[in-house]
Amino acid sequence: MMGKLKVYADRMSQPSRAVLIFCRFNGIDFEEIKVDLSKRHHLSPEFTEVNPLHKVPAILHGNFNLFESHAILVYLSSAFPGVADHWYPTDVFRRVKINSVLDWHHSNLRYGAVNYVSNTVLGPALGRPLNPEAAAEAEKVLLSSLSKLEDIWLNGDGHFLLGGFQPSIADLSLVCELTQLEVLDEKDRDRILFPYKKVLQWIEDTRTATNPHFEEVHNILYRAKKKFQQQRSRVAKTGTETNNVMERHSKM
Amino acid sequence: MMGKLKVYADRMSQPSRAVLIFCRFNGIDFEEIKVDLSKRHHLSPEFTEVNPLHKVPAILHGNFNLFESHAILVYLSSAFPGVADHWYPTDVFRRVKINSVLDWHHSNLRYGAVNYVSNTVLGPALGRPLNPEAAAEAEKVLLSSLSKLEDIWLNGDGHFLLGGFQPSIADLSLVCELTQLEVLDEKDRDRILFPYKKVLQWIEDTRTATNPHFEEVHNILYRAKKKFQQQRSRVAKTGTETNNVMERHSKM
Repeated sequence: MMGKLKVYADRMSQPSRAVLIFCRFNGIDFEEIKVDLSKRHHLSPEFTEVNPLHKVPAILHGNFNLFESHAILVYLSSAFPGVADHWYPTDVFRRVKINSVLDWHHSNLRYGAVNYVSNTVLGPALGRPLNPEAAAEAEKVLLSSLSKLEDIWLNGDGHFLLGGFQPSIADLSLVCELTQLEVLDEKDRDRILFPYKKVLQWIEDTRTATNPHFEEVHNILYRAKKKFQQQRSRVAKTGTETNNVMERHSKM
Repeated sequence: MMGKLKVYADRMSQPSRAVLIFCRFNGIDFEEIKVDLSKRHHLSPEFTEVNPLHKVPAILHGNFNLFESHAILVYLSSAFPGVADHWYPTDVFRRVKINSVLDWHHSNLRYGAVNYVSNTVLGPALGRPLNPEAAAEAEKVLLSSLSKLEDIWLNGDGHFLLGGFQPSIADLSLVCELTQLEVLDEKDRDRILFPYKKVLQWIEDTRTATNPHFEEVHNILYRAKKKFQQQRSRVAKTGTETNNVMERHSKM
């Protein structure tokens, strides 16, 4: 007996959301432990025991600790017999193709999305300044990644990555990355995503396939989106904004 | 029957070297197909069929194509029965810990090492200018990654990552990343690596464990190192250097 699974997560973090949705969808019995990044809980001694690298998500299953969301999703797919095969197939050819997408994710879609969002919107809430040059460079990587999703990874028979007819852990991980774009100004988000019709359909299909869990776990993001919107209209009216005001209104 | 494995590689690329060393060490029967990045062979129609993302390494095994070096190493460990278990253990707990290191690799050690080397030495040979600001930012990530290797990933009983007594695919992949630092000015390389005694010992142990293949596959890098050294002393003597001169002497 391993004991009950503990998932250390902040729902404002996209890989945290992917792991939480996965556990809930697959009926895994787990306890969610909130690690509030904005309150620096990831630096606490308790969490350092679970992940000395101070990143969410991380899990503790009995004495076994693990971090890095892709590795966690692989572990959960392997260790919990109730998880359907399509999430991480036992067939080695299908399995390593999923590994290939997940490996690609890191320096492409994730790099582009994280750096774009944090340099256009999120930075000040996490105590970092916005950097327009870094945002421009991240946008290039993000757009190139979206076009590779559209033309290569979603270029198959089914609606999911690699032509799958049911979602894999790669679909969940990459779609959760893209939902982070919700916090952008709506026009900006549309400008970025609108040209990629297959990507938009795939986000929708993955959401539908994992609801109601997908929506429930994303609620915090939709609330943050509203706050950022209100903030933007206040700035538009007064024509000014300071970091202090930004921080007061962006506690997540 | 899958037919003979084809490995598409440029030995100047560190993940290419990891896959080649792995195949040779494990007695896998394969054909090495050179994709010369400096001659833009990665954009050829033949290679695009194997990897539409135009990156090395990639493999073709019968009709099955695969790219991303970590996924390739997982595939080779699973598909070739002669590969010893320590490379990618069947035990799920040991296996996903290796996944965790490999996932960490992308945005940490790889990001730092690749961007530092390409912005201090390699850039012009690949048609990109050197960028001192980007080099400084990459150096921070590289040093932080080295300190995490030293204090966390190499903090176990054995000499290898995660306390292993024999190397895994993660050891090979990460050590090949670090050998890229050979092309740096020797003083600069020593300055970066010298404080990390466990890391230095681990590079040596991984090399010893996989020789003579490790050295043979790295020969091209040692030759490139000499060329860059000669170039640097010429610059030191004449006090000047142009991109043209740099390019003329750095064909690899």
